[in-house]
Amino acid sequence: MGEFGLIRRLTEELKIENPTTMKGVGDDCAVLSPTEGTQTLVTTDLLMEGVHFDLMYVPLKHLGYKAVMVNLSDIYAMNGTPRQITVSLAISKKFTVEDIEQLYDGMKLACEKHHVDIVGGDTTSSLTGLAISITAVGEALPQDIVYRNGAKETDLICVSGNLGASYMGLQLLEREKAVYLSQVDKSDKNTANNSSTRQLVNSSTINDFQPDFSGYEYLLERQLKPEARRDIIEALAKANIRPTSMMDISDGLSSELMHICSQSKVGCRVYEDRIPLDYQTAAMAEEMNMNVTTCALNGGEDYELLFTVPLSQNDAVNELEDVKVIGYITKESLGKVLICRDGSEFELKAQGWNPLQ
Amino acid sequence: MGEFGLIRRLTEELKIENPTTMKGVGDDCAVLSPTEGTQTLVTTDLLMEGVHFDLMYVPLKHLGYKAVMVNLSDIYAMNGTPRQITVSLAISKKFTVEDIEQLYDGMKLACEKHHVDIVGGDTTSSLTGLAISITAVGEALPQDIVYRNGAKETDLICVSGNLGASYMGLQLLEREKAVYLSQVDKSDKNTANNSSTRQLVNSSTINDFQPDFSGYEYLLERQLKPEARRDIIEALAKANIRPTSMMDISDGLSSELMHICSQSKVGCRVYEDRIPLDYQTAAMAEEMNMNVTTCALNGGEDYELLFTVPLSQNDAVNELEDVKVIGYITKESLGKVLICRDGSEFELKAQGWNPLQ
Repeated sequence: MGEFGLIRRLTEELKIENPTTMKGVGDDCAVLSPTEGTQTLVTTDLLMEGVHFDLMYVPLKHLGYKAVMVNLSDIYAMNGTPRQITVSLAISKKFTVEDIEQLYDGMKLACEKHHVDIVGGDTTSSLTGLAISITAVGEALPQDIVYRNGAKETDLICVSGNLGASYMGLQLLEREKAVYLSQVDKSDKNTANNSSTRQLVNSSTINDFQPDFSGYEYLLERQLKPEARRDIIEALAKANIRPTSMMDISDGLSSELMHICSQSKVGCRVYEDRIPLDYQTAAMAEEMNMNVTTCALNGGEDYELLFTVPLSQNDAVNELEDVKVIGYITKESLGKVLICRDGSEFELKAQGWNPLQ
Repeated sequence: MGEFGLIRRLTEELKIENPTTMKGVGDDCAVLSPTEGTQTLVTTDLLMEGVHFDLMYVPLKHLGYKAVMVNLSDIYAMNGTPRQITVSLAISKKFTVEDIEQLYDGMKLACEKHHVDIVGGDTTSSLTGLAISITAVGEALPQDIVYRNGAKETDLICVSGNLGASYMGLQLLEREKAVYLSQVDKSDKNTANNSSTRQLVNSSTINDFQPDFSGYEYLLERQLKPEARRDIIEALAKANIRPTSMMDISDGLSSELMHICSQSKVGCRVYEDRIPLDYQTAAMAEEMNMNVTTCALNGGEDYELLFTVPLSQNDAVNELEDVKVIGYITKESLGKVLICRDGSEFELKAQGWNPLQ
């Protein structure tokens, strides 16, 4: 049957969960029926092998899962609900039927968790590595949509979860890869690079994720299996808190703060000691002789939510689980400032992870 | 500034034409406001260098134009109106700022022609070739949408334009490339392959397309600069003809007929002498010693519309410009049959151009 026959079968069998999906795979277009009164949200991501992921240590199931999650995260970052995705793949000859099955399993798992339908896509061959292009479609009532440009002076700046863990997970994987490659006889290096990821990360299923990196499992999970924060969106709605601006943290807190400030034409003051960190992130940073605040500010791939709320909602926001106030919005002329633990102040700079440089 | 700075500038400056586009580039998602009562159409394509295009003879402006057109063609094939596209690019170091400008110029030209907004996308680097992923969003009233599965016994099978020209254009380009490469000293071959397309096709602007392939300009235009057939959709609406099934011809007439027949659970009879051919297609096929009917049936990349209409609309459809009836729909048990010029009959087989094989 081959990889392409498999994909055809896999996509033909996709079940449709959403009442807004009228027609999925199988015609020139997918047909969606937007819920009355909603606006449509569209976001897209293109992931290239060797640039965004290294198959030496990224299991394909995790890759599929993450490729979907990063798109859903963008829909939640608008305060919307994801409904459908399209999936385009370019695959080279080195991939087996089992590889593609793993990749789809990860994508389907992510979709099921968020009640999202795979409604179309394109599959083609690639002369070189794997390319994954996912487009997500979501919806929201116009009055619910939160843009990046609504932050106002005195608003509180909040983040969900903790930052820098995904970046430290990546450092750990890169370190272990280097160790592994240095142990492999030079003549075998090519084989090691081409053989999949199993040497480094054992993950037959995402739920039984059991890497051999004891003590740092959380960092690997954050890097390999990020979760789009629908729970935060739901908690905000339940608490009747409507953020004035919001985006997800994919390129690093520092870079995203710059976006919100420049689009909202405001400044900000952020406190180093308020930036949420996991214990493993701090421990790993120390082990690697890195500054943990720099990792949290510039690491990226956190897929947490950064948002601002009016000062009047201080109490309400403080009651939210897994949300922390890290600073506040100021006049634009006051700049974008980080207040360090010792009281010194620095101008924030966007040094986020950037595949373009 | 570099290629990525340029893309940022190009996408920030994009003008918005559609009243349904609420927010384009610049936030986590694009925000669209569907016209009341319409359903949303979504289609996507992933084009890989070396698989779908050869930069030795495809000018980047044409590539951009075509990459957009093939997606718009899918929206028209549902009898819908395209509104927005997202554009994701993965580009390698070999591309200059001018290259990217050319690519965007072609995409913008295609969008302007069809009043479509570029509302988002993703730009990244590639370790190898160019990858282009475009997703198009369109809309249509539910009662206007034409699927592939509505063809009924006795319906007339119609095609727009003519077939096989794009395929013959590709053959011509491949032939000239081979000639060119054979003339280049072997030691220079790599340079020739990497240097762009200008040796073969001179096309500083699409409108002044002046290739040095005299007598076969039409074939090159069909291959390099296909046009999505909005005019046919408009003519059908004006004549009050609602097709019972429709799709665009991207993989070849034969393959697309199979799709319509299998999805509609019908058979068909198609007449070889009714298949529309351009003079240049026939001349080129003869020159290359190829069977022109095979080229028209299996060539692909025509981006013409294949549709069926009730027999009662025979007169109306015959009055349409650039539309030809090529056969009719039968019971499924009668099979999918091509009636040749000499009266002999063959079972149609899908042998369309398939990048997957």
